[in-house]
Amino acid sequence: MLEKIDNGKDVSNLTLKEKKQLAKEIRTFLLENVSKTGGHLASNLGVVELTISLLSCFDFDKDKIIFDVGHQSYTYKILTGRKKLFSSLRKYKGLRGFPYLKESAYDFFNTGHSSTSISAALGMARARDLKGENYHIISVIGDGSISNGMSLEAINDLGFNKTKMILILNDNGMSISSNVGGISSYLSRISINERYLKVKNKIKHSLDNTKFGNAMYKVLSRAKDGMRGFLVPSKYFEDMGLTYVGPIDGHDIGLMIKVFERVKRMEKPVIIHVVTKKGKGYDKAENDPTLYHMVPPFDLDKGVIPVNKKTYSSYFGEVMLELAEKNNNLVLITAAMCDGVGLVPFAKKFPKRYFDVGISEEHAITMAAGLAASGMRPVFAVYSTFLQRGFDQIVHDVCMQNHPVIFAIDRAGLVGEDGETHQGILDLSYLSIIPNMVIVCPKCVQELKVIFSWALEQKFPIAIRYPKGCNNIEITPIKQIKLGKWEILQKDNTSKVAVIATGRMVESVMSILKNNKLDIMFINATFIKPVDTSMLKKLVKNHYSILTIEDNLLSGGLGDAILCAVNNMGPINIKRMGFSDTFVEQGNIDLLFHQEGLDEKSIIKEIKKLMRNKKIK
Amino acid sequence: MLEKIDNGKDVSNLTLKEKKQLAKEIRTFLLENVSKTGGHLASNLGVVELTISLLSCFDFDKDKIIFDVGHQSYTYKILTGRKKLFSSLRKYKGLRGFPYLKESAYDFFNTGHSSTSISAALGMARARDLKGENYHIISVIGDGSISNGMSLEAINDLGFNKTKMILILNDNGMSISSNVGGISSYLSRISINERYLKVKNKIKHSLDNTKFGNAMYKVLSRAKDGMRGFLVPSKYFEDMGLTYVGPIDGHDIGLMIKVFERVKRMEKPVIIHVVTKKGKGYDKAENDPTLYHMVPPFDLDKGVIPVNKKTYSSYFGEVMLELAEKNNNLVLITAAMCDGVGLVPFAKKFPKRYFDVGISEEHAITMAAGLAASGMRPVFAVYSTFLQRGFDQIVHDVCMQNHPVIFAIDRAGLVGEDGETHQGILDLSYLSIIPNMVIVCPKCVQELKVIFSWALEQKFPIAIRYPKGCNNIEITPIKQIKLGKWEILQKDNTSKVAVIATGRMVESVMSILKNNKLDIMFINATFIKPVDTSMLKKLVKNHYSILTIEDNLLSGGLGDAILCAVNNMGPINIKRMGFSDTFVEQGNIDLLFHQEGLDEKSIIKEIKKLMRNKKIK
Repeated sequence: MLEKIDNGKDVSNLTLKEKKQLAKEIRTFLLENVSKTGGHLASNLGVVELTISLLSCFDFDKDKIIFDVGHQSYTYKILTGRKKLFSSLRKYKGLRGFPYLKESAYDFFNTGHSSTSISAALGMARARDLKGENYHIISVIGDGSISNGMSLEAINDLGFNKTKMILILNDNGMSISSNVGGISSYLSRISINERYLKVKNKIKHSLDNTKFGNAMYKVLSRAKDGMRGFLVPSKYFEDMGLTYVGPIDGHDIGLMIKVFERVKRMEKPVIIHVVTKKGKGYDKAENDPTLYHMVPPFDLDKGVIPVNKKTYSSYFGEVMLELAEKNNNLVLITAAMCDGVGLVPFAKKFPKRYFDVGISEEHAITMAAGLAASGMRPVFAVYSTFLQRGFDQIVHDVCMQNHPVIFAIDRAGLVGEDGETHQGILDLSYLSIIPNMVIVCPKCVQELKVIFSWALEQKFPIAIRYPKGCNNIEITPIKQIKLGKWEILQKDNTSKVAVIATGRMVESVMSILKNNKLDIMFINATFIKPVDTSMLKKLVKNHYSILTIEDNLLSGGLGDAILCAVNNMGPINIKRMGFSDTFVEQGNIDLLFHQEGLDEKSIIKEIKKLMRNKKIK
Repeated sequence: MLEKIDNGKDVSNLTLKEKKQLAKEIRTFLLENVSKTGGHLASNLGVVELTISLLSCFDFDKDKIIFDVGHQSYTYKILTGRKKLFSSLRKYKGLRGFPYLKESAYDFFNTGHSSTSISAALGMARARDLKGENYHIISVIGDGSISNGMSLEAINDLGFNKTKMILILNDNGMSISSNVGGISSYLSRISINERYLKVKNKIKHSLDNTKFGNAMYKVLSRAKDGMRGFLVPSKYFEDMGLTYVGPIDGHDIGLMIKVFERVKRMEKPVIIHVVTKKGKGYDKAENDPTLYHMVPPFDLDKGVIPVNKKTYSSYFGEVMLELAEKNNNLVLITAAMCDGVGLVPFAKKFPKRYFDVGISEEHAITMAAGLAASGMRPVFAVYSTFLQRGFDQIVHDVCMQNHPVIFAIDRAGLVGEDGETHQGILDLSYLSIIPNMVIVCPKCVQELKVIFSWALEQKFPIAIRYPKGCNNIEITPIKQIKLGKWEILQKDNTSKVAVIATGRMVESVMSILKNNKLDIMFINATFIKPVDTSMLKKLVKNHYSILTIEDNLLSGGLGDAILCAVNNMGPINIKRMGFSDTFVEQGNIDLLFHQEGLDEKSIIKEIKKLMRNKKIK
């Protein structure tokens, strides 16, 4: 079946039986491909029938759809002309892992971060209405994403203004980590309730056997009204001004098509509550959707075998466990990223001192400020790119009040295959500008311990930034941290060339120095803020040339900070290496470093250039 | 009465009659003082009885309270030992207009931006519970603030985890502009409903006449249950996991005290819905709470007389009207700041092309991206400090996808009396680092027109940044905008000193040049990003010294951008003037410029220093 299907029209022309067959084939296709390339698996397996049903009922030559977060868009990509690109999934210049405007006319908005889809869709709906056009706009959003503040703001606006739009609430009872929050608990009260199954069957029966039309909606509504008090499926969203339909089985193509066709006739905002199973159709993923959320290439029969490598994330978790034993005030916060940031052991051992607030970075940060204001020592562990969501809270609630919140910033720098939306290359820039903020970067996994121990003794906000993965060469961690002091890793003899690198880039330079005898002063910029002014003064005084290397945007990063610090100290030659003023796309991290001129070869070239120029002088 | 009252204990010792008398005296005190000093008036008049009731029932030597936004905390300040400081309200080093940790042991968290209080309070409540302590934590939050995403995230967490905490929903049907959104409409369905008054009286009657205890709560609940279907006051918050009480009359001290005493015994999260009137007790403010939201000094009998000065805000509004006539795709977005950003005339004339999304900056920005993605030309008009709330959306939804959203950034630079939380001195820094962003600054009110006209013709994101107020000397606007091109306002004869200023600071230098013959090259940096590299090259080549002047943090601002741009162009002497790495506190703007070394005298000094050094060379 699948080989004959290339677009939405092809899908809608199939019989129901053929669509069911198509779903099977797509699951096979997904499993075969993603197990080879790696990628998001469980989320995509969960929405195969949903996507087929959407393509059956809507015409995306005029209608528009936005997949929230976007890691569930593979089936949509397969069925909108991109099937053949799947071997290049998430590779440099290959098929994107998320919806991408430039990739296809069927992608209408880039996604990646959570909870943007309702706002974007509402903007599009308003544009449509202002232009007097008439088509459907759909947001497909998970139960984790819908409880984020931004989604709720959009629903608040949508329900008040009654703009015609369709929300598909893809409720799999599971965001990336297990879902938390009142809305989630509200949804699960609906879905888990055993009586719900009966009701659902009743609804389905009605739909299959009665004349279709207003009837279905009436049946749904009646069922709903009749159950008020134990099911109450609609009240929350209807209080917000949306028309609620559901819950319906998200693996029943026939039912979904009937519901979608009915909803298409409504001239108002509708939310359709669809219940799906993450990992559907592949036992291993159904049983452990967190492990199969994002998979490396793996053997389908054996399944994903978790690697027990000591990464920054896992070691961070260990360090937190250790420090929590000694410090009763230490508490940990995550925004739906328990596993990713390495906090599973901590959550198990110290459940009362661990807070997963769901996809709510803003709330997480100000909640941390509240904890700190009452004498606790909160550590908010978060991916660099998602911390952006809480910029105002870092400024207004943490730094302006100087509350000693610690930010454990994972996935800083390049993350690789997730692409633009997930690279953590802005954090040094937007954190550096905030008064009272201190920024520290470990040069190796082992250094997390001394840095976090030090941080817990300080009384101001501290951001500790580290990359995905681990270091690949052995590195000796620094013994002692002193605020704003850098570490000299090698002294020069005569060159008067100083290389100042930070974080992951220190490892790159160490690896260079292992294989190349280079007479340079080599400095690890442990602190990005404050910079080590006294060391810089010495360098200027002694007429050094400086090369700075960082895995952050040049604008506002370490190099800029150094340039500004040495201004007026005296004449000095500074060359800065970092990411230029563009977003870095998806691809293998090493390849991206090469593309961005930050690979070892490029670094050696710059060092040698500086050394040469120095000798001429 | 008031002269004898200095703290919460004094308040709680009063009889109900005396408390009512106290309320009257506080209103008089507020009117007399705020009409002299200026400040937030309507919001403070609205919560006099509420604050007295809170101080009657809670002991803030152990209990904690956070006023959301904080512009309604005057009565609380009066009654917690700060009465005598009111003549210094909002002055440099004077009484703060918002809760301020360093000001009093009775202020527990700084506020200023909306919707932070529930998160902060929840953090404090968790700290309390972890420490095994037992006291009350209260968040007082308005109906505008509670519908912001961050509040909803916090409620989501709170309701799920059932942490003991009290939310006072201060419902005055009115945030800064008139309130919008599903939640607001939901609340008004409760409050406006005529039957509500009857119910309220019934409840009150029961409270006054029956034995008090569980009874009251039962009465409230029963009344509520009985009315399901037309009143439904509780469902929304109860679906979220909070216990809902209300609505109750926020000007009835006796009733509030009874309710608060009952709620104090509950070991779970409770939301008390209190209905108040903004401006209460002063007719003029009751009738026009927007005008009396924030008042300058005024005559109490005559009332505030609106000034029709041509400010950046008002002229922005005019320009939008004019451009909207020519460009059907132009649409305007505000986040509850219609009046402040000058959009009242636009909202009246083009209601369909005007979107007030409530206090929802995140949603506003991504909604704008959606509008732009569908061919509209959205302008989001927002105060600089509030734009921070949408940093991630600017990065992820606007700039990464290069959607041509225009940001009209009002209140950039210093705003003065509102203090740290409201100064707009970070925007150049956090916007400059974002790839694809372009930043333009008018040097005078009149320049808004040519800049916005130009911006509407471009196809990329543009931030246009301008200060509070207007220019005080006449300035000729630039005729034509060219991307990244600066404007030479004066050439030097022999000095080889170039002063590069931006926005409001251009006026300062022009005013200096009017009164002092200074042989300098004077450049208006119309663009902060991109900087005018070709002009900078010429300056370097011709061995100029450069002085940069901006009303932004030095870190990441114009000066830094120039410093980085000229690095490696050749040796050059650059001195940068801007705000140092601290938050700037409240006070008169001119005074603050002086304190920060950015007044005319300091600028002249720096110019002369550069000229002297130049001559020595």
